[in-house]
Amino acid sequence: MTFGIVVFDQVEELDFIGPWEMLTMWSKYFKGPEQCLIVAQRAGPVTCAKGLSVNPHVAFEQCPALDFLLVPGGSGTRREVDNPVMTRFVAEQARHCRAVLSVCTGSFVLQAAGLLAGRRATTHWGSLARLRELPEVTVVEERFVRDGPIWSAAGVSAGTDMMLAFIADQAGAAVAGQVQSAAEYYPLPIRYDDFDKSARAPGYLKRASD
Amino acid sequence: MTFGIVVFDQVEELDFIGPWEMLTMWSKYFKGPEQCLIVAQRAGPVTCAKGLSVNPHVAFEQCPALDFLLVPGGSGTRREVDNPVMTRFVAEQARHCRAVLSVCTGSFVLQAAGLLAGRRATTHWGSLARLRELPEVTVVEERFVRDGPIWSAAGVSAGTDMMLAFIADQAGAAVAGQVQSAAEYYPLPIRYDDFDKSARAPGYLKRASD
Repeated sequence: MTFGIVVFDQVEELDFIGPWEMLTMWSKYFKGPEQCLIVAQRAGPVTCAKGLSVNPHVAFEQCPALDFLLVPGGSGTRREVDNPVMTRFVAEQARHCRAVLSVCTGSFVLQAAGLLAGRRATTHWGSLARLRELPEVTVVEERFVRDGPIWSAAGVSAGTDMMLAFIADQAGAAVAGQVQSAAEYYPLPIRYDDFDKSARAPGYLKRASD
Repeated sequence: MTFGIVVFDQVEELDFIGPWEMLTMWSKYFKGPEQCLIVAQRAGPVTCAKGLSVNPHVAFEQCPALDFLLVPGGSGTRREVDNPVMTRFVAEQARHCRAVLSVCTGSFVLQAAGLLAGRRATTHWGSLARLRELPEVTVVEERFVRDGPIWSAAGVSAGTDMMLAFIADQAGAAVAGQVQSAAEYYPLPIRYDDFDKSARAPGYLKRASD
């Protein structure tokens, strides 16, 4: 099995490296996908939204057929939704993928590639209204949502939660538990302010604080 | 203010990019440190423990005096504790740092640099016993611990929690709350297995499940 994660200039760092960490723990220690690839349109360094520079493993033209594809978000998605090379790559790979996942504003790239028609999906709380303006998508305010083979997560750090749930779906809860303990993913439940009471808070956060 | 994060071959990806995301959200949007740098012994790509390739911003010799320094973990720390160029860099920068932080097995590098003498510190649950064998460190089983200017976090994902607490300490809870909502860092409290009941579970996790 091959799992590809797409990157592009101004991709948000944690959007893809949170899922990457869970994915590669699964791959390396618990029989997850043999090949995990960072994929970009072209070879050469990619500068992320907050200034981290990463080197993709493979360019679109050399990318093998993927079994799983994840599209992260970041300010660069505002450009990538209008990049036909990107949307074509995502649409064509998606045809033979068992699942396609997005994090944060990566869902806008899935939409531009035609993958959200008639589907439920989500994004960063600050972009929910913008996603609602797009045709044929049913926007939900969950930490992440699965609709058939399409998974989408809320903002930035939500991709980590989604990837653990995805592992549980693919390999069972016991394997997800092993990945969780390997990554010591037992976050503290601290909230530093009362954003959960704000009108702008996503539904899942409001409901959790009720 | 300048915040440096050290990387090295086989550094664990999320160990440094979890904190990096919180740090750079703070820096970019909420008046955190102006300069955030990924620092390595030499210029050129660094291959992380799970295969991600990153390009440091600056090599040790060109690195400015840092106000804050973070040392992540990963299997590469087993080599770096015996690398005098690394331990000297950490020790010398630490002299003028306001705070030095570690994640996961990064605490072994702090110890090798002489920074944990008489201090409380922690590491990944799988390395607690090994840290206890080292002289002069008081090992605690917390998600993260602060002892004066030295902060250390438990494994991999714990660095993200530590960095938010560090931001709250430096800039106040309101700023930490803004970073938290920007990164949508409201993780789900799901546990996929009963590792918290295991003898090997770290103390903070056992206590949370009591």
